[in-house]
Amino acid sequence: MSTLRIPDIISKKRDGKTLTEKEIEFFVSKVVDGSFQGAQLGAMLMAIYMKHLNDAETTALTRAMTHSGIVLTWPDRWKGHIVDKHSTGGVGDKVSLLLAPALAACGMKVPMISGRGLAHTGGTLDKMESIQGFRIHLTHQEMTDILDTVGCFIAGQTDDIVPADKIMYANRDVTGTVSSLGLITCSIISKKAAENLDALVLDVKTGKAAVLQDEKLARELATQMVRAGNGLGIKTAALLTNMHAPIGNMIGNSLEVVEAIEGLHGKAPDDLSELVERLGGHALFLCGHVDSVQDGCGMINSVIHNGTAVNTFCAMLKAQGVEPDLADQLCGTGADVRGLLPKSKRTTEVPCQANGYIHDIDGLKCAEVSCQLGAGRNREGEAINHGVGLELKKHIGDNAEEGEPWVIVHHDEDTLPAHILDTLNQAIVVKSGPRTGLRSRLIDVISG
Amino acid sequence: MSTLRIPDIISKKRDGKTLTEKEIEFFVSKVVDGSFQGAQLGAMLMAIYMKHLNDAETTALTRAMTHSGIVLTWPDRWKGHIVDKHSTGGVGDKVSLLLAPALAACGMKVPMISGRGLAHTGGTLDKMESIQGFRIHLTHQEMTDILDTVGCFIAGQTDDIVPADKIMYANRDVTGTVSSLGLITCSIISKKAAENLDALVLDVKTGKAAVLQDEKLARELATQMVRAGNGLGIKTAALLTNMHAPIGNMIGNSLEVVEAIEGLHGKAPDDLSELVERLGGHALFLCGHVDSVQDGCGMINSVIHNGTAVNTFCAMLKAQGVEPDLADQLCGTGADVRGLLPKSKRTTEVPCQANGYIHDIDGLKCAEVSCQLGAGRNREGEAINHGVGLELKKHIGDNAEEGEPWVIVHHDEDTLPAHILDTLNQAIVVKSGPRTGLRSRLIDVISG
Repeated sequence: MSTLRIPDIISKKRDGKTLTEKEIEFFVSKVVDGSFQGAQLGAMLMAIYMKHLNDAETTALTRAMTHSGIVLTWPDRWKGHIVDKHSTGGVGDKVSLLLAPALAACGMKVPMISGRGLAHTGGTLDKMESIQGFRIHLTHQEMTDILDTVGCFIAGQTDDIVPADKIMYANRDVTGTVSSLGLITCSIISKKAAENLDALVLDVKTGKAAVLQDEKLARELATQMVRAGNGLGIKTAALLTNMHAPIGNMIGNSLEVVEAIEGLHGKAPDDLSELVERLGGHALFLCGHVDSVQDGCGMINSVIHNGTAVNTFCAMLKAQGVEPDLADQLCGTGADVRGLLPKSKRTTEVPCQANGYIHDIDGLKCAEVSCQLGAGRNREGEAINHGVGLELKKHIGDNAEEGEPWVIVHHDEDTLPAHILDTLNQAIVVKSGPRTGLRSRLIDVISG
Repeated sequence: MSTLRIPDIISKKRDGKTLTEKEIEFFVSKVVDGSFQGAQLGAMLMAIYMKHLNDAETTALTRAMTHSGIVLTWPDRWKGHIVDKHSTGGVGDKVSLLLAPALAACGMKVPMISGRGLAHTGGTLDKMESIQGFRIHLTHQEMTDILDTVGCFIAGQTDDIVPADKIMYANRDVTGTVSSLGLITCSIISKKAAENLDALVLDVKTGKAAVLQDEKLARELATQMVRAGNGLGIKTAALLTNMHAPIGNMIGNSLEVVEAIEGLHGKAPDDLSELVERLGGHALFLCGHVDSVQDGCGMINSVIHNGTAVNTFCAMLKAQGVEPDLADQLCGTGADVRGLLPKSKRTTEVPCQANGYIHDIDGLKCAEVSCQLGAGRNREGEAINHGVGLELKKHIGDNAEEGEPWVIVHHDEDTLPAHILDTLNQAIVVKSGPRTGLRSRLIDVISG
């Protein structure tokens, strides 16, 4: 057997040739043991960025990354029921907070390992930590116990899960290779595969407020991820969804928890509830739990409207460290959820500047404002403010009267800083013509 | 002024855009101070490999690399006379040993900073060190003194010359980016520019025993190097020469010194003397020392035939540490040069296997054999054997009789190892048909 050499593997990819599974396994093992030294990893990532990975290579790299650390194991009796969701990142995207308990309420096991927010992207973990006592660090035993009794958890990643991804991501971040679709696919799917899933639904965002603004690229990423997921034996489907205006009304950590809990009582804005139902419906269908996606959507709708989803959420909070009294109060019908969560010191209403209808609300600008208010972080590890954010009072298509508030800013400053007001005034477009504005919507479904 | 960021510069080259001079200077400064970290350098080198450098970028990178360390300075009165040669590496290439003293004998100043051999490529420094006492490490003051009194030196690189190249080369070596023409150009020309030259002649080899076997690539490299040299204000020309059969008769360190000293007495084989005269002729013409290249060739020929070149070589040996008696004996007419230099323990003649004429002698195979005998090193820093090597008795086009020796192997083993004999038998082709074999020859001249 010929001995593999690191420079040869780099040169092979440099020349656009297809790497074998053995070569890819060797690459990942050398990344993890540190012998694929810095310059070599940078060169390899750039070669992959430029020459791409084909489906077989993407699957092999995803598999090798998955097995670079521990893969969670679950009791055999759950086989076929273990499911999760991943989103490429939306503004005001609190879907996970509704979907995890809703799927669990349908009898699924949802080992949801999430991330923190960075820049304008909010993080599910940050949102959950708005709730006093919520503990995101769980041991494998705790994860198993919570899935057994509750059916879902929302937890942070541990160091022993996909260590190759941490090294590769840190190097991609500084070498201009973050946006490689192949590497994004491997990064996302390997972390989900380490959860040892039976099924996975992906929410791939495209549009002005998405990481991948170009629909063609987003579709390509969705396709690659679906192939890689299926290649690893996980039934995978992707929804390609428009990310332009914010999802729902709330942007900011505790504000999004408020909206999520209202949603679990059946009072989510249409765009949010549609996303939750569709993603959940696909997940249930992929698991073979329902005969059609439509049946799955209906089942999600019913567990939300019959109270089992919110009860599951409540049980998850308790299982993850929230005082039972607080959890019960938060999840009770007609509860003053806002009063139980961190709040900003002040609120300021921002009025519409013209009469007409709301043609556009720019999600990216809203996210930037929310981050500037303190809801997000600019650097990893930075502390964030759980109470601040934006509360939209108007949506695309609504009538607008000059002077009428379209957004309430939740902030800690004595007066709202001028640059934030400026950005918000730029974020909204009021028109008098025909209603053509674009709300969040499903573009396509991509499955294996 | 906007602040430059390393990832932005990598991404710019990744996308095939042209880097500004400022960006290139920033890149080199960050490489030298270590803040262009490993992965970033690997990614940048790969991006340059794939997207190339245009002439302006190549010149800017060469200049920035040159100024990453000290640039040698010389007395004003030498202006216009400072000249050097660089070869991309030939088998049996002892041209420098003749050319430096010949040019000095014509009144030029030749600050020849050379390298050691690696793999099948011989190193001028290794050859010179066959001569007992020859000292390759010179201070700047010693360099100036020797140029003043003798006119030429052959010395090793010091750590303070082009430090950027050392870092970049070490990283290219492990990342599959050695063969980037732009990076080769910058590496070679920056080191020559640090000698503060007025003129530079390049010997760019192509053919089966050259690094760049493909003539088109070699021509492209020659063109890039000529442009970069001229871009830095050095009058530069390149000879594109065929590198197939070995140059001259000798391959190996002391054997090549023997042939060089014979050559300095006017007894070089035709291909070697032609190369020396042509390269020297161009150098003299570039400096404006002669009215035509042909006059320059003639002047080189005459300093070799009137003894001034060999006297200059002798003076250089003494100036660089060789005992005057030894230097005089080595350079005297009719001297037993071989008896004064390291010799192998044994010699073995290898016979022709057929009758006919010599159609082919494969220089690469000869070089491999020489390296296996111990004349070259496989790893940097390895010790080498100065006495071993090959002595060709036949050349392409010569008659061959079965059993007649075509090469004498100088070796230390009791009997010549079978694999070496095998390789040598593969290196020679004897034919009975018309004489079509290809000897080393000039293909083209590329000038600014």
